[in-house]
Amino acid sequence: MSLEPWLIAPIASIVSILVGLFFYRYVDKQDSGNEKMREISDAIRTGARAFLKREYATLALFVGVIAVLLLLFLPKPIWSGNPLNNVALAIAYIFGSSFSALAGFLGLTIATKANAKVANGARQGLNKAFPIGFRGGAVMGFAVVGIGLLGVSIVYWLTGDPEIVLGFSFGASSLALFAKAGGGIYTKTADISADLVGKVELDLPEDDPRNPAVIADNVGDNVGDVAGMGADLFDSYVASIVAVMILGAALSIGGNTQYLQIPLVFAGVGIFASIIGSLTVRVGKKGNPGYALNMGTYVTCIIFGILTAIATYYLGYDWRIWGAAATGLTGGVIIGVTTDYFTSEDKAPVIKTAEASKSGPALNIITGFSYGLRSIILPLIGIGIAAAISYKLLEPLGGATFGVFGISMAAVGMLSIVGLTVSNDAYGPIVDNAKGVAEQSGLSEEVIAITDQLDAAGNTAKAITKGFAIGAAGLTVVSLLAAFQEIASAAGHTAVFDIMDPLVLMGALIGVAIPAVFSAILMLGVGKNAERMITEIRRQFKEIPGLKEGQPGVKPDYAKCVDIATVGAIHELMPASVFIIVATLVVGFVGGINALGGFLTGAILSSLLLALLMSNAGGLWDNAKKLIETGAYGGKGSEAHKAAVVGDTVGDPFKDTAGPSLNTMITVMSLVASLFAALIVQYNLVLLLGI
Amino acid sequence: MSLEPWLIAPIASIVSILVGLFFYRYVDKQDSGNEKMREISDAIRTGARAFLKREYATLALFVGVIAVLLLLFLPKPIWSGNPLNNVALAIAYIFGSSFSALAGFLGLTIATKANAKVANGARQGLNKAFPIGFRGGAVMGFAVVGIGLLGVSIVYWLTGDPEIVLGFSFGASSLALFAKAGGGIYTKTADISADLVGKVELDLPEDDPRNPAVIADNVGDNVGDVAGMGADLFDSYVASIVAVMILGAALSIGGNTQYLQIPLVFAGVGIFASIIGSLTVRVGKKGNPGYALNMGTYVTCIIFGILTAIATYYLGYDWRIWGAAATGLTGGVIIGVTTDYFTSEDKAPVIKTAEASKSGPALNIITGFSYGLRSIILPLIGIGIAAAISYKLLEPLGGATFGVFGISMAAVGMLSIVGLTVSNDAYGPIVDNAKGVAEQSGLSEEVIAITDQLDAAGNTAKAITKGFAIGAAGLTVVSLLAAFQEIASAAGHTAVFDIMDPLVLMGALIGVAIPAVFSAILMLGVGKNAERMITEIRRQFKEIPGLKEGQPGVKPDYAKCVDIATVGAIHELMPASVFIIVATLVVGFVGGINALGGFLTGAILSSLLLALLMSNAGGLWDNAKKLIETGAYGGKGSEAHKAAVVGDTVGDPFKDTAGPSLNTMITVMSLVASLFAALIVQYNLVLLLGI
Repeated sequence: MSLEPWLIAPIASIVSILVGLFFYRYVDKQDSGNEKMREISDAIRTGARAFLKREYATLALFVGVIAVLLLLFLPKPIWSGNPLNNVALAIAYIFGSSFSALAGFLGLTIATKANAKVANGARQGLNKAFPIGFRGGAVMGFAVVGIGLLGVSIVYWLTGDPEIVLGFSFGASSLALFAKAGGGIYTKTADISADLVGKVELDLPEDDPRNPAVIADNVGDNVGDVAGMGADLFDSYVASIVAVMILGAALSIGGNTQYLQIPLVFAGVGIFASIIGSLTVRVGKKGNPGYALNMGTYVTCIIFGILTAIATYYLGYDWRIWGAAATGLTGGVIIGVTTDYFTSEDKAPVIKTAEASKSGPALNIITGFSYGLRSIILPLIGIGIAAAISYKLLEPLGGATFGVFGISMAAVGMLSIVGLTVSNDAYGPIVDNAKGVAEQSGLSEEVIAITDQLDAAGNTAKAITKGFAIGAAGLTVVSLLAAFQEIASAAGHTAVFDIMDPLVLMGALIGVAIPAVFSAILMLGVGKNAERMITEIRRQFKEIPGLKEGQPGVKPDYAKCVDIATVGAIHELMPASVFIIVATLVVGFVGGINALGGFLTGAILSSLLLALLMSNAGGLWDNAKKLIETGAYGGKGSEAHKAAVVGDTVGDPFKDTAGPSLNTMITVMSLVASLFAALIVQYNLVLLLGI
Repeated sequence: MSLEPWLIAPIASIVSILVGLFFYRYVDKQDSGNEKMREISDAIRTGARAFLKREYATLALFVGVIAVLLLLFLPKPIWSGNPLNNVALAIAYIFGSSFSALAGFLGLTIATKANAKVANGARQGLNKAFPIGFRGGAVMGFAVVGIGLLGVSIVYWLTGDPEIVLGFSFGASSLALFAKAGGGIYTKTADISADLVGKVELDLPEDDPRNPAVIADNVGDNVGDVAGMGADLFDSYVASIVAVMILGAALSIGGNTQYLQIPLVFAGVGIFASIIGSLTVRVGKKGNPGYALNMGTYVTCIIFGILTAIATYYLGYDWRIWGAAATGLTGGVIIGVTTDYFTSEDKAPVIKTAEASKSGPALNIITGFSYGLRSIILPLIGIGIAAAISYKLLEPLGGATFGVFGISMAAVGMLSIVGLTVSNDAYGPIVDNAKGVAEQSGLSEEVIAITDQLDAAGNTAKAITKGFAIGAAGLTVVSLLAAFQEIASAAGHTAVFDIMDPLVLMGALIGVAIPAVFSAILMLGVGKNAERMITEIRRQFKEIPGLKEGQPGVKPDYAKCVDIATVGAIHELMPASVFIIVATLVVGFVGGINALGGFLTGAILSSLLLALLMSNAGGLWDNAKKLIETGAYGGKGSEAHKAAVVGDTVGDPFKDTAGPSLNTMITVMSLVASLFAALIVQYNLVLLLGI
């Protein structure tokens, strides 16, 4: 195994981790500014860590229970198979969740340090502040891909068995589910409560230090957008590689492991492309940071294309495989660009929604929601065509299995540059917080203006990276579905997911409902939690004398709000997580493989619909409000503005809680199905009753 | 053919039409009350007829164009097949749309007469007013089933070819699409505008005669809920029968047309059951009209079960077929009852949503939307299980074709009592308008209280009948999908809708987006239209002296608002209708049968999701507002009430425009696919390129 091509994966991983550490040191040694700024930054970091600690503690319990179940029952019941496999799977699972937690912890630590440093850098100008923000985000980016790919490589090296790697992936998914759902509930609880009492009732500005929820709000940006999003992409990244490895293993006849190794090679090359791309991201004194971030993405895509072409040439892979990966990547870019249209302040959807706000909140909601519905068609056409092309490209190599292998390579292609997309994404909350620190510590207007500019750039970059994330998730879950089918076939049940099979149909109908119910649990959690926090904020303003007036020395009890958000989020995420796992197992063990295949199909389709709708409508409402705040349709304080604030608040849990959690949800469901496939083939009610 | 069992269908149809005419006469000879009441009733009828006239004129153009296309190309291009078939299909199509229009016209005429008569009856007590309302609705109910089944019978009798009957069904669907979408846009434009200016800005009560939009609002109830809903169920009813006829024809080997005739027999029996059931609907002086309506439904179900059992016994049908129909009917009842939970004023969803309104409109929206998401799982499980059971029941008779025949029989079972459900549904807008007439003509508080009680009963009955409508639509479109597959197979392409086939997958992904975009077009239409009307209402209040103060003799310009709603609705419905037909044809002629099958699958799944979400969330918001108006959480005029009004307004186009139009949309798409199936098998891009 000494010089096999796949070894590029662990090598690239280690390089990636080193680059991440280099960025960590770079950011860490920047100045955090004055006393006040350090204090705020410390409060955010303390709150974020406290949340993470409690989240990880709850998760540890959950992981422990699942690990024991895996040990006992999977891949085969421990009394009927080789117990070593069970041990390996359980360990891989624990390993997966720990690795993901480690990446999240690293990223969060530096992000919560970087905020004050960016704010301080902004005092010296844009070109000083920008790299601190970007490199702070890049720590997360390179930790995610480095640690993720390293983990996959280690498990593969030790076991050589993609199904054990599936356990690693499931571990990462479990963490992601908690991190996305928990972080999402946390961040929006704080955001909504801070806004509704602070902005709407008392007319305080954003990030006003008198608001008791302001620290919780800043913490929320980090636990939701940094830790949560990092865990999400860690999960998608690993899952896409695992899915293609499982399909590749089925193609590896006679000890030829080429197809099994290709995803590792492409992922490794993708890391190098991301590193090079990240080094090109820079901005001058008067530069445009949004442009810089997007250029970084495009440059990385091109480098990836070239490097993988070289690898394909030298390693003698079929060019069609390269074509599938390139199709995926191109699809991702196209989806990102078209999605951008629906959330841009200078395009019809945002403008019309802002305009409708003049007639009150109801028309703002109806208009924004309608454009959200309209926004989903182009990405879905993009995913559909990318899937069809990559399938048809590889089908001539040997039929349907190669075809779905092509789809999964397209997913790997889309996710190959994830190191860079995570960097761009994590940049967002850092500079958002930097703005908060600048406001709360009373820095000058010019400095705040610079942090504003940095913040706006984060929103622009987000649209493109979100396109990648959703597109990739779509293709990944399709390949996970194929992997599930493959595993079931290997276990003796040749599954065809024909929609006219009544069990497949029943499964599909039920599956459609799952993402809806899952979203509802999360959003109701936000609602309930926000009501608690609103009561607390109102209480503080009433009972703490001088707080509302901003008397010097009077401070709200920030910790209390941080605590409400934390306890509530931990409390609410468990039912959602348990619900989807139990639903998947019930459908499987009652209806069998075909029902489960239909179930996953229905869930995939409806989760794409809801994820796109919620993300885009949420972004659109947010920007409609911002457009009005620039002075349009009456500007700040007008009736139109009040209506737009309602839309923005509705959009908050859409775009930051439910919408982005759906990716993770569907990955977890697919992995659970794949892990239990062999068991379900043997034991299910329909089989038992002989129906 | 003299004494064949299917002749029960035309006989029942004629009896149904006679019963409808009897009810028409009964209602017509009731007293319409005083001058003022007649005047209002006349204004509503004039407005409604004006709208219908313009709608039908636009539709005639559309039907003309489609009929020419059918004549030229279907079932085969006129130059390559038997031209007589083309002529028959085109005529059947025109026939279908005209018959449906006739039923709509009859129902609307009597409904707009009945309102004042019910209000006048209420002066003599509940037990005088109730039968006028119910029988007014029953005219529509029996016209729909009578005319619908008569049309199917005539076309079948003349041609003996279910594929020509498909043309009749497509005609009915075309009309339904226009009637639902156009009526839905009309009614919500008027409702939202009347509320936003009248209630929110000027604090006028509901149905205040000073409001310039009040007549348009009343007209809207009729064109949306009476004419639109009638056309919708006419369409579903006919489509469910046609789908099972096509599947039955495939089973009718060797001249045995038993399976082809069964749906006609069951539908005929269903009409008799509905007639008997309708005669049991009565209420005492102190009775509960909601209870009476629901009891009528249950009694009809039981009678249907008994009569079809007798028919099964005497005609020697297999009992499994009866079982499938009974499964469908039971499923419909269960779906209705569970749906009721989410919109009842005394259950958690409505209570929590009302409570959340205390924290403002955003939390009202988030909470209501979340419960709407949660509400979809039980109906979908219900539809899924009903489909699986009815399939598995009939499968032993001879395999998969019998299985899907079972599903389609379940749909026929659910829709068998449609005569009664339409009666209950059309009762709603009649008594709602009666309340309006009573308020506007200044009748006493007691009379208004009685009309209030009648109105509340309409809402209760609506939940159950809506369960039927959605469940039946779900099963009907599945059987239409099977019919499409059957027709494609007959044309030489054995289609398997395997989700792992890349073309099916691509189709499914795109299909998912169609109902979303369709809903968006309709809701944006409402939004745009409402903005226009709001401007007009504000203008009238500003420019007509004494209007706001209610000076005697000062009247607003009602006709202007009626005109805005009419022109806007006609203008907006065309793009939505053309969009779905063109999208279906593009996917078919580009991707072929498999892509089109996937496309329909995706559209079916997502339309069920969106229809349930929108209908239930809308109903829930409406009732949360009503709950607050009873005095809870601060009562009328409180902040919570204002928040709840926002939710109710958002819910309006959800539940009365987009949500209910989705049934029709998906039927139209399925019928277009079936009609063009043979042509698509021969000509499509994928085939042409040899992919």
